[in-house]
Amino acid sequence: MTELINDRFLRALRREPVDRTPLWMMRQAGRYLPEYRATRADAGSFMALCSNPELACEVTLQPLRRYAMDAAILFSDILTIPDAMGLGLYFTEGEGPKFERPLKNHAEIKALEPQRAVSELRYVMDAVSLIRRELKGSVPLIGFSGSPWTLATYMIEGGSSKDFAKTKRMAFNEPEAMHMLLGKLAEAVALYLSEQIAQGAQIVQIFDTWGGALSHGAYREFSLRYMQEIIQRLPREADGRPVPVIVFTKGGGQWLETIADCGADAVGLDWTTDIGEARARVGDKVTLQGNMDPAMLFAQPERIRAEVASILERFGSGSGHIFNLGHGITPGVDPDHVLAMVDAVIELSPQYHR
Amino acid sequence: MTELINDRFLRALRREPVDRTPLWMMRQAGRYLPEYRATRADAGSFMALCSNPELACEVTLQPLRRYAMDAAILFSDILTIPDAMGLGLYFTEGEGPKFERPLKNHAEIKALEPQRAVSELRYVMDAVSLIRRELKGSVPLIGFSGSPWTLATYMIEGGSSKDFAKTKRMAFNEPEAMHMLLGKLAEAVALYLSEQIAQGAQIVQIFDTWGGALSHGAYREFSLRYMQEIIQRLPREADGRPVPVIVFTKGGGQWLETIADCGADAVGLDWTTDIGEARARVGDKVTLQGNMDPAMLFAQPERIRAEVASILERFGSGSGHIFNLGHGITPGVDPDHVLAMVDAVIELSPQYHR
Repeated sequence: MTELINDRFLRALRREPVDRTPLWMMRQAGRYLPEYRATRADAGSFMALCSNPELACEVTLQPLRRYAMDAAILFSDILTIPDAMGLGLYFTEGEGPKFERPLKNHAEIKALEPQRAVSELRYVMDAVSLIRRELKGSVPLIGFSGSPWTLATYMIEGGSSKDFAKTKRMAFNEPEAMHMLLGKLAEAVALYLSEQIAQGAQIVQIFDTWGGALSHGAYREFSLRYMQEIIQRLPREADGRPVPVIVFTKGGGQWLETIADCGADAVGLDWTTDIGEARARVGDKVTLQGNMDPAMLFAQPERIRAEVASILERFGSGSGHIFNLGHGITPGVDPDHVLAMVDAVIELSPQYHR
Repeated sequence: MTELINDRFLRALRREPVDRTPLWMMRQAGRYLPEYRATRADAGSFMALCSNPELACEVTLQPLRRYAMDAAILFSDILTIPDAMGLGLYFTEGEGPKFERPLKNHAEIKALEPQRAVSELRYVMDAVSLIRRELKGSVPLIGFSGSPWTLATYMIEGGSSKDFAKTKRMAFNEPEAMHMLLGKLAEAVALYLSEQIAQGAQIVQIFDTWGGALSHGAYREFSLRYMQEIIQRLPREADGRPVPVIVFTKGGGQWLETIADCGADAVGLDWTTDIGEARARVGDKVTLQGNMDPAMLFAQPERIRAEVASILERFGSGSGHIFNLGHGITPGVDPDHVLAMVDAVIELSPQYHR
C-alpha cells in the first residue's frame, strides 16, 4: 500500500492540522467539463459511461487534471442499487432518472435481494479498483451510495418527485412495508460500500438527497436511522487505516446535532446553513463539508472569490472543514469559474491553519 | 363594522387566551374539493376563476361550509402582480404558472410600474370586499401576496425553476438591478396589501415560497429585507383594529430568530421544523403557524389524528399557535381526511388552553 502523496483530506476528516483547507466538488466529474461531454458522447449513453470501468475511470480523473482537488470521487450514479435489484434504470433527456418497474406492492419489496448490490455491480467495483490504481496515491478516493430513504423515493415514485406522495403514503399508512424496504436497502448499501472499500475506496459518502423532504420526526425514523445502521455495518478500517464516512442530507441543517451523532466522521452542509453557526452547534464532534451555493459559480470570479473568503472566515481557524459546494455542480458552469473557486481556497485558506 | 363572531384566530395572533387552537389550511379553497373543481370547470380557466369576484368569493367560502376553519383566505394567485405589470401570466397543464414575457434586462426592470398592482387588479379588490361582506363577520379574512423575492424568481425564470440559475445570476452579478427589481416589487406588494386591507382584509400573509432556496446571507439580503420593508409600509390598523401580518418562508426554519425580528406578528413553519423547538427559540415574540406535512393527509384518519396530537403537544400549553399545514394542501387529498385533521384539532387542542 503506497503512502498518500496528499493526505490533507483524510487529515481534515480527523480534525488534524493541515496546511490549507482541503477541497473537492460534488459531481466534479460532470457535464460542465467539455472533456466529460466528449467521453460521454463516445460512450453513447450515461449508463454506458457508468458501466464501463475504463471510461468511468477516465471521467473520474478529468477534474483532477484541471484543478488541485484533494480527493477523487468514483464516477457512478446514486441509483445503481435499485437498478441491480431489477427495477430497470433509464434516463430521459431533461427529466432525470426513471425506473421501468417501480415498486408496487409488499410482495415486490419482499422479493428484493440486497446482495445484488454487489453481485450485479461488478462494473462499479472494477471502476473503484482501476481508479485507485490510476490515482497512484496522489489523492484519496471517495466511494459513495445514495441513502436508503433517497433510493426508496425513486423506487416507489419511479423517478423524481415534487412531493413524494406515493413514498410518504407508504411510510405513513404501511410503516412495516416501508421499514422492510429501508432495512433491505440499508443492508444493500452496507454491502455495496463495504465492497467499494475492499476494492480501494478510502472514504465513503452517503448522499441523502431527499431526507430534507421529511418532517423532523419522520427524518429520524425513515432516513437517519438507516444511515446509522449502515455506518455500524461498515468496516471502519482498511489496510490498517480508518475509513471515514461522510453523511450529506440536503436540507438537513435544522437537524445537525442529531446527524452529528449518527456515527459519521463528517457532515455535509448545503448552502442554507451558516457554517460558523454549524461549527458552534457540533463543536469538534465531526468535520463539516461544504457549503457554497452551486449557483454562485454563475457569478463573476471576483464575486466567487468573495464568497469563498466569507465561508472560510465563518468556519474560522483550525482543521475540520472540507471546502465543497452545498450540492452538485450545475451543468452550464464555466470551468474557469471553478478555477476561481479553487484558486481562492488555495490562496485564502492557509491563514486559518497557522 | 360588525363584530367578529369567531375571533379565535385574531386572538391567537396577539397571544391572547383562546378556547382551542385556531386553524385554517393554506390553499384550503382548492382542487381537492369536488365543488371547487365544478366551479373551476364552469369558469373555463384558472385565470377566469381568479379574475371573477363572484366566483372567487364562491370558492373562498366553499371550505368554510365543510370545515370549522377559523379564517377565510382570499382566493387568488401569488403571481397577480407580475401579470398586472404586463408579463402575461398563463397556466399550462402540469407545468405550473408561466410568463409570456419574462424580464430580460435592466430597461425592462426600470419600466415596471408598482402602482399597477392596484390599478390593474381591481378584480382582486372587488373579490376582497365581496368576500368580506359575504362572510358576515363569521370568521376573519386573510389577504395575501407573494414575497418580492418569490415574485422575482418567476418574473426572471419565466416560470417554476429547480435551481433559479437566471435569478441568482442576476442577484450575484448585477445586484443593483436585482435590488431595483426587489425594491419595486416591495412597493407594489405594499400597495397591493394596503388596498386589500382597505377593502376588508383583516390579516395579511406574505408567501415567500422560494426564500429557502437562498443561502443564509443571501436570504437576508434578497428576501427578508424586502418583506420587512413591506411590513413597515403597511397600515397597522384598519377600522380601529390592528392588522396582523404573517410571514411564511418555506425552508426558512434555520433562520427563525431573524425572521421573528422582521416585524411580523406570526411566522409560518413548514414541516421540517419541530414547532416545540421553534417556540423555545422565538419565545413570545411571534405566533407560530403550522406545521403538518401536507402529505400526512394521504395517511389514514387515525394516523392524521396522531400527527395532530403530536404537533399540539410539541407546541404545548398556551396561546400563540395557529394550526395549519406546512405548505398548501395537495390536490388529490380525500376531503374526509381534512375532516379528520379538523376534528382532531377541535377535540384535542382545548386541553392546552385551560
